[in-house]
Amino acid sequence: MPEMNPTPATAAACTPAAGAPRLTAARCELLREITILDQTGERRRIAIPVERPLTIFVDRRELVTLMTLGVNPELLVLGYLRNQRLVDRVEEVESITVDWDVGAAAVRTHEGVADIAARTARRVVTTGCGQGTVFGDVLSQLAGIRLPDAATTRLRQSMLARMLETMRQQETVHRKAGSVHGCALFRIGGAGCEMLMFVEDVGRHNAIDTIAGWMALHGVDGGDKAFYTTGRLTSEMVMKSAQLGVPIIVSRNGVTAMGHELAERLGMALFGRAANRHFLCYTGFDRFDSEPEPPPTAVRVVV
Amino acid sequence: MPEMNPTPATAAACTPAAGAPRLTAARCELLREITILDQTGERRRIAIPVERPLTIFVDRRELVTLMTLGVNPELLVLGYLRNQRLVDRVEEVESITVDWDVGAAAVRTHEGVADIAARTARRVVTTGCGQGTVFGDVLSQLAGIRLPDAATTRLRQSMLARMLETMRQQETVHRKAGSVHGCALFRIGGAGCEMLMFVEDVGRHNAIDTIAGWMALHGVDGGDKAFYTTGRLTSEMVMKSAQLGVPIIVSRNGVTAMGHELAERLGMALFGRAANRHFLCYTGFDRFDSEPEPPPTAVRVVV
Repeated sequence: MPEMNPTPATAAACTPAAGAPRLTAARCELLREITILDQTGERRRIAIPVERPLTIFVDRRELVTLMTLGVNPELLVLGYLRNQRLVDRVEEVESITVDWDVGAAAVRTHEGVADIAARTARRVVTTGCGQGTVFGDVLSQLAGIRLPDAATTRLRQSMLARMLETMRQQETVHRKAGSVHGCALFRIGGAGCEMLMFVEDVGRHNAIDTIAGWMALHGVDGGDKAFYTTGRLTSEMVMKSAQLGVPIIVSRNGVTAMGHELAERLGMALFGRAANRHFLCYTGFDRFDSEPEPPPTAVRVVV
Repeated sequence: MPEMNPTPATAAACTPAAGAPRLTAARCELLREITILDQTGERRRIAIPVERPLTIFVDRRELVTLMTLGVNPELLVLGYLRNQRLVDRVEEVESITVDWDVGAAAVRTHEGVADIAARTARRVVTTGCGQGTVFGDVLSQLAGIRLPDAATTRLRQSMLARMLETMRQQETVHRKAGSVHGCALFRIGGAGCEMLMFVEDVGRHNAIDTIAGWMALHGVDGGDKAFYTTGRLTSEMVMKSAQLGVPIIVSRNGVTAMGHELAERLGMALFGRAANRHFLCYTGFDRFDSEPEPPPTAVRVVV
């Protein structure tokens, strides 16, 4: 049985912040083998990703059930709580205990989450390619977001090319089994870029939530960072990135109008259809140092 | 400004069932043009899909907000209510009025939805590539599902090839602007197959919910049908298809373990990575008449 755990490439800043919660390190099977039948009539074995439910309990109160691949469930829970603004500072959480036998994540806080019932009452089903949820409150908190200005955090075309090359070389569950989304956090600065974390999940929201958990746990700031995602640049993706203070997102996929509008309003840069050396910069041209490549020339055959 | 409305190809069964609700026919802009900058330094105009919030009110009570492309919002709402099992029969709904100026869908029922507060209290955030929601109740209702047996509803490889060819030729928002998912309903039988409806949305769940609404409105049974989706075969996709009585799903994308397990348990057939003449049959081999194609031969150059 192939088992593969794309452990976060925590090359830097991997010491938990002071007062950080105690986390278990629950593990589970990521891939399963099944027998398929193809168009030639051949039966063969392939690997597929395993999704599983994880029900989050906050101080014994059931909050929500997430479906996840389960690579870093504790970070996923921490990031989910933070992105839903149920937890503002990581020090508020005492511990997160994940037990796959019962599919539960028990969150203990030091002093409880104030007004948790009221704060989770309003439901907005957002849509990337699924129907995601954000609690109504989140939308109203965008007004307070201030991202570093365009002179400070910007991306050079050669850096973007390096990011895409790093992703191309990354060992992934997707390459083995498909059906998952990946998300990576890069530090960018000067002429270089460095991948700090990479995670895959059945949902791209889970992937970014997990990175949010990692950032919160290690006290990592988003100001000099860029996200890479395999998912679309929808309003939720842009919103989550903005909440984490990350002003640049690069996607293998496209953009929707709300994602575009939101990013424009927040002064973020969005790059889509990014693979190999190709990309489209959708917005935030002022954060981008274009180093134009010559358009591909037709192959000329001399006889 | 390019505007394109992929109107349902309702070749058959397009008369609403007796007692069907009155629906508005709200329309909105599907595409927007923006200026992008590409790797060659060129600026040009491209179209992107427009997502917008639609808040559903049932008898003046706010239920949920969906993010949608807005092609057939009334059918989306009807299908959503049906797939969430808040409405069992289409006759229970008196009218659905969508007003894009306020982003609201007002649902009026004849006699109210019993226990609506209790039935929508439990939240399960499912995951395809987003974090979808199903209300807890839905999971428990799978036990009652009976699909037509494998001798009755089955797919021939030549029929599958025809389905894929139909999808390849379909005019789509995706081809113009990317970032949306498509879903189609096919009637299959004998040696033929016929596309009954096709719809695209920013979320693949919305797309299948919209088709569910169309089926409910027209009293169309799922027993002799197959779904095509551009999205992954996750547990929610399989669950929704099973609820509609459709025993076969074909996807351009892959499968997750829970989707596979659920389909196996329900006796459904799943086909993935399906494009051109290629596919993998993941489960439900007994619903499939394989007509093996010769494996591609290597090109031999004779000097």
